[in-house]
Order: sequence, then C-alpha cells, then structure tokens
Amino acid sequence: MTTDASTPPVPQTAREVRLARHLDGAITPGHFEIAEVPVREPGPGEVLVRTDHVFVAAAYQDLMRPDCPLPVPPYQVGGRIGGGEVGTVVRSADPSLAVGDLVQMMAGWGEYTTAPAASFHRLDATLFPSSSYYLSQGPTAYYGMATLARAGEGDVVFVSGAAGGVGSLAGQIAKCRGAARVIGSAGSKEKVAYLVDELGYDAAFDYHDGPVVDQLRKLAPDGINVFFDNVGGEQFEAAVQVAAPHARFALCGALSGQIGGTGGHPRLDLMTAITRHLELRPYATYHTPEQVQAWTEHVARWLSEGRFVFPQTVVEGGIEQAPGALLDLLAGRHRGNITVRFSG
Amino acid sequence: MTTDASTPPVPQTAREVRLARHLDGAITPGHFEIAEVPVREPGPGEVLVRTDHVFVAAAYQDLMRPDCPLPVPPYQVGGRIGGGEVGTVVRSADPSLAVGDLVQMMAGWGEYTTAPAASFHRLDATLFPSSSYYLSQGPTAYYGMATLARAGEGDVVFVSGAAGGVGSLAGQIAKCRGAARVIGSAGSKEKVAYLVDELGYDAAFDYHDGPVVDQLRKLAPDGINVFFDNVGGEQFEAAVQVAAPHARFALCGALSGQIGGTGGHPRLDLMTAITRHLELRPYATYHTPEQVQAWTEHVARWLSEGRFVFPQTVVEGGIEQAPGALLDLLAGRHRGNITVRFSG
Repeated sequence: MTTDASTPPVPQTAREVRLARHLDGAITPGHFEIAEVPVREPGPGEVLVRTDHVFVAAAYQDLMRPDCPLPVPPYQVGGRIGGGEVGTVVRSADPSLAVGDLVQMMAGWGEYTTAPAASFHRLDATLFPSSSYYLSQGPTAYYGMATLARAGEGDVVFVSGAAGGVGSLAGQIAKCRGAARVIGSAGSKEKVAYLVDELGYDAAFDYHDGPVVDQLRKLAPDGINVFFDNVGGEQFEAAVQVAAPHARFALCGALSGQIGGTGGHPRLDLMTAITRHLELRPYATYHTPEQVQAWTEHVARWLSEGRFVFPQTVVEGGIEQAPGALLDLLAGRHRGNITVRFSG
Repeated sequence: MTTDASTPPVPQTAREVRLARHLDGAITPGHFEIAEVPVREPGPGEVLVRTDHVFVAAAYQDLMRPDCPLPVPPYQVGGRIGGGEVGTVVRSADPSLAVGDLVQMMAGWGEYTTAPAASFHRLDATLFPSSSYYLSQGPTAYYGMATLARAGEGDVVFVSGAAGGVGSLAGQIAKCRGAARVIGSAGSKEKVAYLVDELGYDAAFDYHDGPVVDQLRKLAPDGINVFFDNVGGEQFEAAVQVAAPHARFALCGALSGQIGGTGGHPRLDLMTAITRHLELRPYATYHTPEQVQAWTEHVARWLSEGRFVFPQTVVEGGIEQAPGALLDLLAGRHRGNITVRFSG
C-alpha cells in the first residue's frame, strides 16, 4: 500500500483480536487469539479507518457463547471480538467521508477496518476532550434513567451496582436532572467512597455490610421514587420493599456477563408491587441513533457546566491489552467505563 | 318517620351487615352480624338513600383483617362491610339530588343510608338495562387493559383468571379494542367452555391440565403481546417465558382475597424480561372518577352494538344473602361480577 503527502501512512498488515473458541465455562486468555491480516485498500463507496479506541463491555463475554440469549448474533470462531469503537478515516473512496474524519463503528477489535462508508457514523471531534468519551454505556444509562424511570425534581433515587459502567453514569444523570437524593450500592469500601467523594452520590453503602433492605431503609426512610438496577437479586427485592407509591424501576442489570449468575431470578412481591402501583421497566438497548443523540447532547452540556465527572479507565498499550482488559472488567478490577487505546 | 304522596314509604328501622369480629384465619358466617338500626331523616345538606344493589368483592375479605395491607382503611368491628353500592334517593334535604335519583355510593351493606349529598354520585338510569351494571370491576379491567397494557389492533392477549370478575371483562375489552387473539385461563372445564362459548375468547385452557407455559406456548406459538394477570404465581412466570418483545403486562392479581396465598411471590426471570424489553405494570385502583367514566362510556357503546356480554350474577333475596354471596365468591362458586339485590 502506498502513501503520499496528503494521507497518513498505512501499514500493509495489521492485527485483530479473534474468538479462538466458544465459551462454555469460565473465560480465559485462551479464548482469544491475535491474528495479523492484510490491510485492504477501499473499493468504490468504501473507506479505510484506523481504530483509535475500543470499548470493553461485560456483554462481550455473553456474545462469546454459541447459545447467547441476547437478541444480537453471537461471535463466530475466527471472527473479531468487540462492537463499539471510534477511529479516524485514513483512506476514502466515498464522498460522504474525508480523510481525517472522526467516526464511530461496530467493527470489532481490529487495528484497521475497510468497509462501506455507510457503516461508519461521523462524530464531532470538538465536543469532548477525547474521542474515547464517545465510548461508554451512556446511552443505556440515559435512556433508562431519563426516558424509562423519568428521574427528576425531588426524587429519591437508588442505583445498584453504582460504581459500574452504567451505574457510575446513571446516578449523575439523576442528580443533573434535579433528583433530591441519590443513593448507590457497591461491593467494596473503596467503591463506596468513590461514589460519594468523586461521583456526587449523596449516600452509598456496601452490600456486604448487612441486609440490603435494612441499609436502604436507613438511607431512604421515606422510600425511593426511582430504582435503577444493574444487579438483580437481593437488591431488586429490597428496592420493592422500600419503594414509595408509584415508584419507577429501570431494570438493566442481571444481563451483562451474568448469564447463569445468581441475580437473574429474584422474587417479585406482587402484593407490594400492586398496592404501590410500581412501574417496572426491564430493558436492554443497543444504542439507537436517537438514544446516542440524547445522551451526547446532555452529557456534553453537563461536562461544560462542570456538573459531571466522566468515569473512564483508558487502558494503554494497544490491541494486545484488549483481552486482559475484558478479563479485568469481569473480575471487578475496574470502575466506570473501560476503553483500550489502539492509536490516536 | 312519615310519608306523603310525593315520596316513597320509608321504614322506621332497617338492617345492615356488620363486621362481628376481625378475621385472623378462615372466613366464616360468624364473622358477620346483621343488626337492625333506626333510619335517620336527612338533615340540611343530606339525603336518605335506599340501597338497590350491593357489590361483592373478594377484597372485602382482606378489609376484614386488622392488619390489611391495602392502602384503604380496614373495616372496624361493629361497622358495615361493603363499599360499592347503587341506590335511589328517597328523601332529600339538598338541592343537588332529588327524590328518585339513581346514585352510586361507598356506604356499605345497609338497606338505607343517610349522609351528605356530596358522598353520592348521580347516575344515568337510562344507560344500562339494570342499575346493577354500575357495580363491577369494569373500571379496574378497563384501566389495566386499555391504559396500562394498551391492548389493540393485532395483539395476542393472555388473561389469567379469565372467568373472574375482572378477567371476564378484561378479555372482552381487548377484543373490542381490536386484539387479534384473546386467550384465557381458568380453573375448570366448565369455566373454559364459558370463556369460549359465551365471552368470545378465541382460546382457553384449564391450568390444571399441565404446565401453564406449555399450554400457553401451544395456543400462542408466536408469543403474547399483552398479559393481563389476575393470579400471579406460575401463570405470571409462564407469561414472561412466552412474551413477545416489548410485551405489556398489567398485573392486578395476587391481590384480592389472596393475602398469604401462593401466587404472591413468583420468580421474575430478569434476563428474559430485559432482553425482551417487557413493560410490567402492577396496579391497584379504587376507581377514580376518570376511570369510571372511561369504562362506562366504552361498555355502554359496546353493549349497544351487541359486542359485549356483561357477565354478572345477581343474587336475589335481600340483605341476608350478602354474607353468603361473599363466601361463595371466595370459594370459586361464582363467575363474573357478583351483586346482591337489596331492593329496586
């Protein structure tokens, strides 16, 4: 492949992370392989994109199972892992995208991608301090908290799994929308301190410190109006007991990385749910353009106003670090949203 | 008390059904007592109403418990049972109501009631074939099916406990709103036949005939879009498994007469609920004026068009039959909505 003065250099080959074999038990480094493949020049209507940052999501583990129950196709053996990346156009054979454009894609963990221009979405490179800000669970958190649970003025809000990729954004979204009090749960003293000291939670507790229902009732003596669930199990059951009348529940947990886990089948106390007229909204979203737009607009404004902390861990070191970053995320060794920097 | 030519005769004393003692175990005839009390002439702003029909609801059993968890006050020992009646004004000392007016009230099981005119709601006596039609779970069924579950054109709808007071109306409401297929469950072959032969259900099954999930899947191979639940337990769990994406659930069961029963704590399969983006709306309603209005308007039109069967059992024999009618209802010996004719 040749380069000239107007275009960045492009190597002849580049690496990608592939699924080595389907997952049936615990995930290990052996489930991934890194392959070297040719970088293909774009044909008419195509562009070539260099990957700058890739997202790391717990759901990727589920997509490594052949019988994945998620409503998207699971990964194929020999195909790329991943599904949320940002990059820079380095060759273009389509008038809709120019060399240098920042784009979002679902191309997987490869250093370069050649594909039709329509499969990339152009981004505003001036909106955020880093293009990695485009990679988060933000659209999921915003849709659940703003559209489904409708957290707003005066609400008492409880977020389970509050230090995770979704939870660390969801609590702040509620606060920015005027919630009176935002309470979070997490699995360690360090995470509890992080919620209150860095993410603006009004109160937080470690779910290991006693029955969730007792801890929650102490922190929300008049009940909760909104519950944003990332966990299921005991936390869901406690939230029903502590719910105020007409409380709204956005349930997005018990999903990612938790297939076969223990949080997936809580008891639903129907009598309490009925007499309190609760609204239960379990949901999964794969980020429609409208959801991405709503999230991006709001978080950019809140960031510019100094009201929002963007909790992100950027793993340096390139493509070779991606499998380990997923393993670390699944082991609970990260807080907030995780990306791996490939380039840029 | 005197009468003249312009007003109906009124006796000096009349009977009422009182709570003899609070319920702690099984309900028996000994929990009721019938007392003879003076009929009081209305003072300024008051009217005297003769009770024509009283409603019989399973929830009355719950209100007989001192620790009733419903968000309305339980019955007091020595106070009247009941809470949904229609009657006729026989004396008026208020310009807003005239002798002969048909009214609705929440005055309990008494033959006569003297109270402020504002505690009665005037009805249109020409709307229905009998004033007993004003006594039903219709507002509950309509609110759940139309407002919460939003059953409409092309929907496949499942109603559990479909032969009961709410269910026998809910399925027909779905059908009148354009549902493609309405499926009901009940607890006997006779009730199953009644659903299909008389209430216009497209299919029905006896939940004793095998696992609910298998029976439901056979009758709804492409899934259900709406679930209207009167039961909880296994029927709720099955509905989650057979739900189509974005199915709406109105959950009004596991409530009336079921405190301490087995249907109240089903497992919620969160993974399935999340990936299918279900909408779960547990609710109880005590019939707001708007809900009564919406139900009354629609059922009157559907009845006039010959599209609706009003499933009602009217127990004859006056006030002495009321306690037994409640016991029969709780024992499953009635279908549809139950009223007792006191007069009229």
